[in-house]
Amino acid sequence: MTKIEKGCALFTDFYSLSMAQGYWKKKCDKPVIFEMFFRRLPFDSGYAIFAGLGTLLEQLESLAFSDSDIAYLNDTGLFDPAFTEYLKTFRFQGSLWAMDEGTVVFPNEPLIRVEGSLIECQLIEGLLLNIINFQSLIATKACRVWLASGKGSVMEFGLRRAQGADGALSASRAAYIGGACGTSNTLAGKVFGIPVMGTMAHSWVMSFSSEAEAFDAYADLYPDRSVFILDTYDTLKSGINNAIKTGGRLAEMGKKFGVRLDSGDIQYLSTKVRERLDAAGFNDARILVSNDLDEYIIETLVKDGAPVNGWGVGTRMVTGDKEAAFSGIYKLAARMEDGQGFVPVIKLSDNPQKTTNPGVKQVWRIRDEGGAAMADVISLDDEEPPQPGGRYAFWHPSADYRHFYHSVKNAQAMLKVKLDKGKITEPLPSLADIHKNMALSLEQFDSTYKRLLNPHIYKVSITEKMRDLKLDLIRKRLGDRNS
Amino acid sequence: MTKIEKGCALFTDFYSLSMAQGYWKKKCDKPVIFEMFFRRLPFDSGYAIFAGLGTLLEQLESLAFSDSDIAYLNDTGLFDPAFTEYLKTFRFQGSLWAMDEGTVVFPNEPLIRVEGSLIECQLIEGLLLNIINFQSLIATKACRVWLASGKGSVMEFGLRRAQGADGALSASRAAYIGGACGTSNTLAGKVFGIPVMGTMAHSWVMSFSSEAEAFDAYADLYPDRSVFILDTYDTLKSGINNAIKTGGRLAEMGKKFGVRLDSGDIQYLSTKVRERLDAAGFNDARILVSNDLDEYIIETLVKDGAPVNGWGVGTRMVTGDKEAAFSGIYKLAARMEDGQGFVPVIKLSDNPQKTTNPGVKQVWRIRDEGGAAMADVISLDDEEPPQPGGRYAFWHPSADYRHFYHSVKNAQAMLKVKLDKGKITEPLPSLADIHKNMALSLEQFDSTYKRLLNPHIYKVSITEKMRDLKLDLIRKRLGDRNS
Repeated sequence: MTKIEKGCALFTDFYSLSMAQGYWKKKCDKPVIFEMFFRRLPFDSGYAIFAGLGTLLEQLESLAFSDSDIAYLNDTGLFDPAFTEYLKTFRFQGSLWAMDEGTVVFPNEPLIRVEGSLIECQLIEGLLLNIINFQSLIATKACRVWLASGKGSVMEFGLRRAQGADGALSASRAAYIGGACGTSNTLAGKVFGIPVMGTMAHSWVMSFSSEAEAFDAYADLYPDRSVFILDTYDTLKSGINNAIKTGGRLAEMGKKFGVRLDSGDIQYLSTKVRERLDAAGFNDARILVSNDLDEYIIETLVKDGAPVNGWGVGTRMVTGDKEAAFSGIYKLAARMEDGQGFVPVIKLSDNPQKTTNPGVKQVWRIRDEGGAAMADVISLDDEEPPQPGGRYAFWHPSADYRHFYHSVKNAQAMLKVKLDKGKITEPLPSLADIHKNMALSLEQFDSTYKRLLNPHIYKVSITEKMRDLKLDLIRKRLGDRNS
Repeated sequence: MTKIEKGCALFTDFYSLSMAQGYWKKKCDKPVIFEMFFRRLPFDSGYAIFAGLGTLLEQLESLAFSDSDIAYLNDTGLFDPAFTEYLKTFRFQGSLWAMDEGTVVFPNEPLIRVEGSLIECQLIEGLLLNIINFQSLIATKACRVWLASGKGSVMEFGLRRAQGADGALSASRAAYIGGACGTSNTLAGKVFGIPVMGTMAHSWVMSFSSEAEAFDAYADLYPDRSVFILDTYDTLKSGINNAIKTGGRLAEMGKKFGVRLDSGDIQYLSTKVRERLDAAGFNDARILVSNDLDEYIIETLVKDGAPVNGWGVGTRMVTGDKEAAFSGIYKLAARMEDGQGFVPVIKLSDNPQKTTNPGVKQVWRIRDEGGAAMADVISLDDEEPPQPGGRYAFWHPSADYRHFYHSVKNAQAMLKVKLDKGKITEPLPSLADIHKNMALSLEQFDSTYKRLLNPHIYKVSITEKMRDLKLDLIRKRLGDRNS
C-alpha cells in the first residue's frame, strides 16, 4: 500500500535508467520506434482483450521524476549529476499508436507502437508492459467468465486475494472492461465509477446470537438490498429457513430479497434452495453464488441449468489463476539513421517464432461481407492498405513456406494515434464505453474462436512486402555474423 | 498506477462498509477478536513465510477516510450522513498480535490476532488479507527459489509482468525478505532501500550498428559494472566473441565483467560460455542467467553443476506462477458479551477442515534440545504455556480421533503484540533484519520440510482444552440447529 504517485517515472527497470544515461552521454538519443506485442494467448484462449490503455496514457502524459526521485538517483552514486539534472525536466514527448482499448487481439500483432527518442522509449518499457500485461490478462479472463455465464451478472469480489493494492484496483478496472457488472472494491468505485456491490460476511451472522437475529437486523437496515448468506451454520438446515422467515417480513413491506451460497456443491444447493424459495412463494428471490468460481465451473453450471442469478467471482478472475502473467513484450522495430529515415531492425533468435517482425507496422482486420473477422494482417506502415474487393496472398508470420489467400471485403486499420508528442489526442472513453467496444469487437468473431477449450485459431498473417523485408534482414544479419 | 494514498480506508470490501453502518446503527459495535490464518500451503510447499506485516502496521496506524472518500460514500446514497460523519473521524484503535515478519508458518495456526471494535475489525478485513496474502505468497516463492539456488544470488526482475504497480512494488519487498539480493524496480530501491540491479536490454545492442560497438560503448560508460547480454543475435557465434573482445579492453584497465544468458538451454550455453571465458583467461567473469526461471529449473541446473553465478528471476517469482494467491482468511474468533468477557465463536462447515478453531488463541513452537522445531501447538490464550520438561498430548486440528505426544524442551510464544490501541509498539525492523529472521527461523526446521516436492508435513496441533471447547461448541451449535 505504499503510495505510488501518478506519473511516477521511477517506476522503471533500473537498466532503463543505466541505458538512458548511456544514450545521453553518447549523444545518441535518436528517434526510434518500439512496438508492444505478445507471443502466446493466456488460458489456452482463442483471443485476448487489450486493456490498460487509458491507465497508460494518463501515466505517460504526467510522467516525471519528483525531487525525491532525483535525490534517490543521486544517492546511488551511479549517475552523473548532469544526467539527473536532465531528468529533472524530463517529460514523455513521444507519440503512441494503439488499438482501441477493449479490442479483441491476437499474438504477434503490434498492439501499441511508440515513436520517440531512444531515452524516452526505453524509460517507459517497464511501465507500459506492467500496465498493459496485467490489465489485458484480467480483461481476457473476465471476458471468458462473462461469456461462460451467458453474459450474466458477474460481480468482481477479488480484493482480498489480489496481488497487492493495485493488483486489486487495476483488476477491478480490467474485469469491468471484460464483462463484470460491478466490484466489491470500494476504492475502485470511487476511482473508476464502477458500481460497488456486496452482501454480508459470515462474521455478520456470527456477531449476533443467532442467524435469525442477524438476518432480521440486516433486513431492517437494508430492506431494499438484503442478500442473506446461507452457509454460516448449514445452508439447507438453517440458512434457507431463516432467510425465508426474514424474507416473509420483507415481502410484507413489498420488498424482495436474495440469498448467497458460498460453499458446498452449487448445482445441488442452488436447485434445493430454488425449490424452497419457490415453495415459499419467493419466485423472484435471487440466488447469488460465490466460492472459487472460474469460467470452467460457471460454464458447467450454466449448461446443467443451475438456477443461479448472479456470480461472485474473486481470486481466479483477478489473478488469472494458473496463468498469472500476460506475455507482452516491447521490442525495438526501427531506428532513425542520418539521411535514411527509419531503418527497420530485427532481433534474431534460434527459435524462429521469437525472431521479431522488423519495421514500422500497421495491423489490418479483414472482414467478410457479413462483417465477420477473417484474419488480421500485419503490413509495413507505408504500404498501400489492402483494397476492398482485392484478393491477396498473406504469409504465416514465422513459417516461411505457408501462405493464405484472403478476399478482402473490408480492411480496418487497427492502430490509431492516441498520444501526439506527449499529449492525449482525444478524451479517453469511459469504462462502460470500453466494455461496449469490447462486446462489439467480440461479436465480429465466430463462436468457434470463443470456445473455452481447444478454440479455433484465428489467422494473423504478414504482407508479402513484410515477409521479403524480414527474410532480407535475416540474410544480412546472418551474413554479418558468419563473415 | 492510480495513486493509492497511504492509510486509504476506502480500500475495503463494500460489504465491510454496509456491515459497519449496520453495527453503528444497531449500536452493537462491541469488542471482538478476529484471527487471520490460512488453510493450505501454496506450491505444495512444506512451509510458508509470513510477510507484509510492516506494510500492514503502517497502513493501520495511518488509516483514515479522506474528505473525497466521504464525499464518494455520500454520493452512493447508501449511507446515512450521520454514519459518514462518524467515518470522518474514524481511526483504527484496535490492538494486534502477530508472528514476527519473516517467520516460517503453517496452515491453520493464527498468524495475526486483532482485538478491536466490530466496526474497525470488519473494515480492515480486505486490506489485511490483501497485504498479507500477497506478500506471504511471494516471500514463500522467493524463499523456495533462494534455497533452490543454494542461497545464491537471486535478482528479482519482475516489474514488467507483475500484477499492477503495487504487484511489482510489494513483490520486490516480499522477494527481498524471502532471499532475493536485489531488484530491477528502481522505485522499490527508493521506497524500501533494496539494492537495485540490472544489465542491458536487447534494445541497447539493437540501437547500435553492431553488437561489438554496443558492448564497447557500454564498457566505456560502466567499466565497473559491465554485464553483456549475449543472445541478441547468437550467443555462441556472436555474443560471446564480442564480450571477450570488449572484456579484453576492460581487463587492460584492471576491470572485470559479466555476461547474461537470456534464451536457449542454460546448462548447455553456460557450460560453453564458461569454457570460452576460461580459455580467454577470464576465470573471474560472472555468468548471470534469466528467462522464465523458477525454483524447479534452478534446482536442476544447480544439481547438474551449471556454472551460473547469478539468477535473474522475474515473472514466476513475483506472481507465484501457477499459484497466484495465498489462501489466507480472516475469521471472527470471539465476541465480548455483557458480564461474560470474550465468548468464543465458531463457524461450522460441512467440511470438518473448514470448521474454525474457536476462541482467543496463542501459538507455541515446540523445539527439541538441539533447537529443532518439532511441532506448533495452538492453545487458548488463557491456558498455561506448555512447560519445558513436560510431556503433553496434542490433538489434530480437525481429525478428532488423532493425537500426538510431544516432549516439550522449549516452547516459544509466537504471537506478540505489534499494535497497541492503534499505535505501533516498537520500531519496525529493517527488511534486511526481516530476511535474517526468516533465515534463522528456517534453520530450525529439518531439511525434509524444505524439499521442493513432497515435503515432510510439519505438525500443527491443538491443546486438549481447545479440542474440548471446539467439540462443545459444535455440539451446542448443532443442537441449536436441530432443535
